[in-house]
Amino acid sequence: MSNSPKAEGRGACGLFADLYELTMLSAYDSFHMGETATFSLFVRELPDCRNFLLACGLDDLLDELESFHFQSDDVAYLRSLGMFPESLFDELHSFRFTGDVFALAEGTPFFPHEPILEVTAPIGQAQIVETLVVNQISLQTILASKAARVVAAAAGRPVVDFGARRAQGLDAALKGARAFAIAGVTGTSLLAAGARYYGIPVTGTMAHSFVQAFDDELEAFAAFAKLYPRTVLLVDTYDTLQGVRNAIELARRIGEDCRLTGVRLDSGDLGALSRTARSILDQAGLQRLKIVASGGLNETRIDALIKAGAPIDIFGVGTDMSVSADAPCLDIAYKLTEFAGSGRMKLSTRKRTMPGRKQVFRRTAGGLAIGDVVARRDERCEGVPLLEPAMASGRRVEARARISDLRDHSSAMIAALPPRLRALEAAERPYPVTVSDRLRADADALAARLGCARSKSE
Amino acid sequence: MSNSPKAEGRGACGLFADLYELTMLSAYDSFHMGETATFSLFVRELPDCRNFLLACGLDDLLDELESFHFQSDDVAYLRSLGMFPESLFDELHSFRFTGDVFALAEGTPFFPHEPILEVTAPIGQAQIVETLVVNQISLQTILASKAARVVAAAAGRPVVDFGARRAQGLDAALKGARAFAIAGVTGTSLLAAGARYYGIPVTGTMAHSFVQAFDDELEAFAAFAKLYPRTVLLVDTYDTLQGVRNAIELARRIGEDCRLTGVRLDSGDLGALSRTARSILDQAGLQRLKIVASGGLNETRIDALIKAGAPIDIFGVGTDMSVSADAPCLDIAYKLTEFAGSGRMKLSTRKRTMPGRKQVFRRTAGGLAIGDVVARRDERCEGVPLLEPAMASGRRVEARARISDLRDHSSAMIAALPPRLRALEAAERPYPVTVSDRLRADADALAARLGCARSKSE
Repeated sequence: MSNSPKAEGRGACGLFADLYELTMLSAYDSFHMGETATFSLFVRELPDCRNFLLACGLDDLLDELESFHFQSDDVAYLRSLGMFPESLFDELHSFRFTGDVFALAEGTPFFPHEPILEVTAPIGQAQIVETLVVNQISLQTILASKAARVVAAAAGRPVVDFGARRAQGLDAALKGARAFAIAGVTGTSLLAAGARYYGIPVTGTMAHSFVQAFDDELEAFAAFAKLYPRTVLLVDTYDTLQGVRNAIELARRIGEDCRLTGVRLDSGDLGALSRTARSILDQAGLQRLKIVASGGLNETRIDALIKAGAPIDIFGVGTDMSVSADAPCLDIAYKLTEFAGSGRMKLSTRKRTMPGRKQVFRRTAGGLAIGDVVARRDERCEGVPLLEPAMASGRRVEARARISDLRDHSSAMIAALPPRLRALEAAERPYPVTVSDRLRADADALAARLGCARSKSE
Repeated sequence: MSNSPKAEGRGACGLFADLYELTMLSAYDSFHMGETATFSLFVRELPDCRNFLLACGLDDLLDELESFHFQSDDVAYLRSLGMFPESLFDELHSFRFTGDVFALAEGTPFFPHEPILEVTAPIGQAQIVETLVVNQISLQTILASKAARVVAAAAGRPVVDFGARRAQGLDAALKGARAFAIAGVTGTSLLAAGARYYGIPVTGTMAHSFVQAFDDELEAFAAFAKLYPRTVLLVDTYDTLQGVRNAIELARRIGEDCRLTGVRLDSGDLGALSRTARSILDQAGLQRLKIVASGGLNETRIDALIKAGAPIDIFGVGTDMSVSADAPCLDIAYKLTEFAGSGRMKLSTRKRTMPGRKQVFRRTAGGLAIGDVVARRDERCEGVPLLEPAMASGRRVEARARISDLRDHSSAMIAALPPRLRALEAAERPYPVTVSDRLRADADALAARLGCARSKSE
C-alpha cells in the first residue's frame, strides 16, 4: 500500500491499437516523416442529457503511456500479418512513448470543442497511442460525468458504488470506481478498486444468498451480526417489513451492546418502504439505524425520492451509473492539429477541427464561471488557463494525485459552474465557449490554404 | 499462435469481487457451512429494444475461473481492512475455484428467466465468483446481442468493428471484438483482438491524420498506396467527392497495376455520397473499387441506407455497437437456487427466483423455434436441451472453441428464431417461455414453506 499505487498496466500493450495506427506508423517511417506532431482530444458535442462533462482518467493514462511497449509475442503477431517490413519490428522491440502531454486536471468540467488533452511527439508515436488515449479518457470521463449527476441528486447524502458486476468489463469496473470517487461517490463495493486506488473506502452489506442459505432470516441476521457487529442487514429477501421487524428483534436480543448500523432495502417501492421502515425502527427506539436503499437507482429516481421526503440515508447505485446508461458513449476525437511546425485541420462535414497547440481560459465573475475561450497555447487571455503539462519526454510531471485531492478539485470546479448547468434538467442556455481571434485567424488562413491545395490537385 | 489462445487473465484476481462476497465467504467458514450450492445466472427482462439476447463470454469466463486466485498483495490488502480472521487469509493463499459450470453454448439466443449458466460449488466458492461471473457474461452478451442486430441490418454485406476506442475500457474493447465476431461481424480494427482471439481478421484503412500530414491529399494517397497497394483510401478529410476524384487520379497514374480496393466515406450524407461516388468511380472504369462507409452507424442507419439502395459494400461500425448504446446494461442476476441439497428462492417484489438446478428445452417446428420450457435439470422435456456441462471440478470440459465455430452456431441458432424476433422492430408477441409443471410445483412448495418459516419468526 502506498499513496501512489502502481498501475498494473493491464492491457497496456502496444497491440491496444487499431491496425491503421501501425500501417501509418510504418508509412511515416518509410517516408522518413519523423517530425513532431500535436494531436488534440476533444468532444464534438454534449450528450443530450449532460450539461457538462467531467475530465477524468488522466493519471491512469499516463501510467499506460509510461509502460506502453510491444512484447515479443506482439511483434510476432504483427509479423504474421505479412504487411510490414522487418525494419518496423526492430523499431517496435524498443518502442517507448517519449512525447509530451498537456491536459485538463482530472475533475475539471469541460465543454465541446475544448481540448481535454494534447499529445506532442514524433508523429508515429503520437499516432500509435490514439486508440489507447481515446478509449481510456472517454471511459473515465463518461463515468465521472454520470456520477457527478448522481451525487448532485443525492444532495449531500452519501452515494456508494455497487456497480462492478454491471460495468462493461473488468477495466470499466475498476476505473469506474475511481471515476465515481473523483466525482464525489464515497465508497465502492469492488475490492480491487479499494486495493488499487488507495483512498477509496470499500463498503458492502450482505447478499440475499446469505439469508437464503439459512432456514430462517432472523437466524441469518444473528449469525452475520455475530461476526460483523456493525453490519447493515439486507431486509428484502422475503418480505421487506418483516425483514425490518427481524432486524429489530435481533437488536432487542443483542441488547445494550447492539452496534448494528442499518437496514438495506433493495426492491419494491423504496419511498413507501423507507417511510414505514423508518417509522417502525423509530418506534422500537432504533433511531440511529440508517436506511440504505439500492436497486435500480439513478439520479432521476434519487431526486424524486429526496423530493418526496423519503428517509433514505445512503444510496447504493449500480447499473445505470456503472455504464452511464443514458449517455454510454461520447462523440470524442483525437485529431492531428500540427505537424512539422505548421497547423493542420480537417474540413470534413460537421467535423472541422482547429489547428495548432491550444489552451482553454475560464473566466469567472462572483466565483462562478461565465465563459471559456479556446486559444492558441502561446496566447495569454483573460481567465484561468485550464490545461497544464502532465507528461514531458514520456515521463509524468507529477506523482499520481490522491483521489481525495481530485475529488476536492472536482467538487470546487463543479460548484463554480452556473447553477443551470448543475441542475439535472437540460440547461436552456449552453455554457458559452468562444474561440480567440488569433486562433480563428489561424484556422481561416489554413482553411483557405487547404482549399487552395485541393484546387491545385484537381 | 495456436487455435486455443491462452487468456491473459487480466484482472482475473480474487479481488475482482465485491466486499460482501468476502464477508459472506468468511461467515460461511465461521459457521462451517461448506455445503454445495448452486447459483443461477439469468436476465429478469429484455431491454425494450431487444427481441432476444445472445449468450456470449463463456470461454473467457472459464479461463478466468481456472486462474482465479489471490496474490500475496491481495491478501495483504484484505488484512489491512481489519475485518477478517487470520484463518481466512490462510484459505485465500491457496484458494482455487473447484466447482462445476453448466451453461448455454456461446451464440445461443435466450430469453428472460432462462438460466444462462449455473455454478455448483461449495457455497463460499460459488459466492465469491459472483461479481466476476456477472460482469463477464453480461459484457459479452450485451455486445453480441447488439452486434447481431447490426449484422442483420447489413443483410449480408460485411460489417467490421471499428469500435475499440469508443468501448468502455480495455477489457470491453478486446472482448467486444470477440463478441462481435461470434455475432457475425467479419473483422476488427483492434490488433490485440486479432492476436488474442486467433481467427478474427484485423482490418483497417488510414486515418485523416495521415492525409493531413501531407501537403496534398493526392500525394498522401500515392504514398500510402505505394506501401499498401491493396488499400482503401479515406476520402473525406477535406471534400469527399474531390477525395474520390483524387483516388481515381491515383488509379489512373498507377495504371494497369492498380490494386486499390476501395474508398471510405466517414462523414456527411452517406447515402447521397455513396451514390455519387459509385457513379464517378464507375464512369472512370473503377467498378471493382468498393465503397466502405463509417461514421455514426448503427443497425437503424444501416437498414435505412440499404432500403434506400445506397451502394455501400462494407460497413465500419464503432461507437453505438461498441457500448450497445441503446441497451448498454442488462437486468442480470446471479441467485442462490440450491444449498445443502434443498431448493432456495427469493420472494422479493418482482425479483422472485426459481429453485434448484435447471435446464432449458427449445421446441422447434419446421426448423423454427416455437417455445422454450425451463425445467428441473433432471427432467426430460420435449425439445433440445440448451445448457451443457462447461466446467467440472474447476477445469473446463472442452478446449476453447474456435470463433468461426461459435459464429456458425450463432448464425444457425438465430436463423431458427421466428422471423418476428429477428426483425429490428420490437416483436409484438414475445417468444413463449414456460416453466415445467414439476419445477413450478417445487417453487410453489418452497414458497409456501418460506412463508411458513417467516411466520414462525414473527
